[in-house]
Amino acid sequence: MPRYAFRIEYDGRPFSGWQRQAAHPSVQGALEAAIARIAPEAPATLGAGRTDAGVHALGQVAHVDLERAWDPGRLAAAVNAHLRPHPVAVVAAAEVAPGFHARFDAVERVYLFRIVARRAPLVRDRGFAWRIGHALDAAAMREAAAALVGRHDFTTFRSSTCQAKSPVRTLDVLEIEETAAPSGREYRFRLLARSFLHNQVRGIVGTLERVGAGAWRPERVGEALAARERAACGLVCPPDGLTLVAVRYPEDPFAGSAG
Amino acid sequence: MPRYAFRIEYDGRPFSGWQRQAAHPSVQGALEAAIARIAPEAPATLGAGRTDAGVHALGQVAHVDLERAWDPGRLAAAVNAHLRPHPVAVVAAAEVAPGFHARFDAVERVYLFRIVARRAPLVRDRGFAWRIGHALDAAAMREAAAALVGRHDFTTFRSSTCQAKSPVRTLDVLEIEETAAPSGREYRFRLLARSFLHNQVRGIVGTLERVGAGAWRPERVGEALAARERAACGLVCPPDGLTLVAVRYPEDPFAGSAG
Repeated sequence: MPRYAFRIEYDGRPFSGWQRQAAHPSVQGALEAAIARIAPEAPATLGAGRTDAGVHALGQVAHVDLERAWDPGRLAAAVNAHLRPHPVAVVAAAEVAPGFHARFDAVERVYLFRIVARRAPLVRDRGFAWRIGHALDAAAMREAAAALVGRHDFTTFRSSTCQAKSPVRTLDVLEIEETAAPSGREYRFRLLARSFLHNQVRGIVGTLERVGAGAWRPERVGEALAARERAACGLVCPPDGLTLVAVRYPEDPFAGSAG
Repeated sequence: MPRYAFRIEYDGRPFSGWQRQAAHPSVQGALEAAIARIAPEAPATLGAGRTDAGVHALGQVAHVDLERAWDPGRLAAAVNAHLRPHPVAVVAAAEVAPGFHARFDAVERVYLFRIVARRAPLVRDRGFAWRIGHALDAAAMREAAAALVGRHDFTTFRSSTCQAKSPVRTLDVLEIEETAAPSGREYRFRLLARSFLHNQVRGIVGTLERVGAGAWRPERVGEALAARERAACGLVCPPDGLTLVAVRYPEDPFAGSAG
C-alpha cells in the first residue's frame, strides 16, 4: 500500500482540535471523511501536531496509506473537493516511503502566536490573533524569553492533561517581532522546537505577555521555569492567535510536490 | 454640532457594499444603526470610498455630526459595542473641524488587491484573495502596468454604471509585489490615486492578470487604455482580493487619536 503525506492548512475555529473525537467536529475527522469518499478502506490519518480547539495550521502534516496508487496532485484535488465546505485544504501531497511517519520523523515544529494591541475589536484578524488593550514592552519580553531557550524541564508551561512522558524539551528559537500598523500594534512570537508539550506555546506567550505588560519582572520567567510547577505559569493565552506554521523533516517530503 | 471622523475596518463579505441600501445589509447601514443607539438624531454618515459588495477595508474613513460632544475614545468604544456582531470596527476616532469632509477632502486612496496562485482552495485567505490556478509573470505585469500610471482617460477600466462625471483620473502608483510561501505564490497589487472610478482597480488587476498569464502581450494594456472603451478591458476580477487600505488627507485627522 503506497503511503502519502499531506501538508494541510486549516482555520481551527469550527473544530474541537486536530484529533478525531466521537461527538465533536475535528480537523482529522473532516480529513478522514473526505479521504473515505475516494478510498473507503483507508485507515486513519496520522498528524504531526495535535493542535487544540481554535488553533490554526498553515503547515500541519499527516500521512495515510491508500489501497491504490494516486497521482499526488489528483489525490490532493479529490480530497479538497470532498473537504468542502470545511475550512481545511490539502496544499501539497506527495508519495512517501512506506516507513515515513508524520509525527515521529518530524525534527522541527514551527509555531506562530500573534498578539494585537488595540482597543477596537478585531475584524480582519478575528479568531486569528489575541487582542489585548495595552501595548507591550518587546525588549522586556525578549529579555525574559532568553531564559526559556535551550533544553529545560517545562513542567511550569505544560497542561495538567499533557500526556508526554517527559516534561523536558529543547526550545531552539523564541523570537518576538513587533510591528506597528494603523490597525494596531502587533507582536509575533515565533517558536521552534523538535516537539512541544501540550499548551506549552500558549503558556509561554501568556507568561511573556505579563512581562510585556509590566506586571512581571523579566527575571520572574526564569524563576517560574525553575520552579517546575504549573502554578508558577503566568497565564495560558487563548488559542486564537496560535498557528502551526510548519513541520520539518530530515528530507522535505513535499520538495517539488503537487498541491 | 461637533463633527467626528472614524477610521473603519471591515470584512466586506456579509455586506452589499459600503453604501446604505434599503433591502440589503451594508457597512454604512450597520455603522449608522450603531451610532443611532447612542445618538438617535445623528444624521447620515459620509464615507470616503463607496466600496462594492465583498470588498474589505482596513482604513475606510467616514464623518458624522453628533448633537453632543464626545471623548473620541469613548465614542469609538460605544459605537464598537453596538456594532457587534457585525465584522465592522471603528479603529480610530477624532473630532475634526466642522468643514472636514471625508470624501471631498481626501487627497489619496490606497487600495490593495491580492491574487494567490495555488491549486488548493483558500482557507486562511478565503474571501480575502482571488485564487487562480497558475503562476503569473510579475515582470510582464509590471511592464504593462507602466502604461497605466499617470493621468489618463480610464473609460476602458470603468464600470458601465460608474457615476463619475469625468473618466479622467491620475493613477499615482501601481506596484506589484510577488512573494512565495509554502501555501502559494502571492501577487500584491498596490494602487494609489486621489480617487478611483467604479470598478477601476478590479478592471486593471483583471487585465494585468491576463498579461501575467501570458494570454496578453504587455503592450496590449496600453492599447486597451487608448481604446477608451469598456469592451477593451480584460476582465473585472472578483471583489474578494480587494481592500481599501487607507484614505489620506492634507492633515491626518487621526494623528494622536484614540481608537
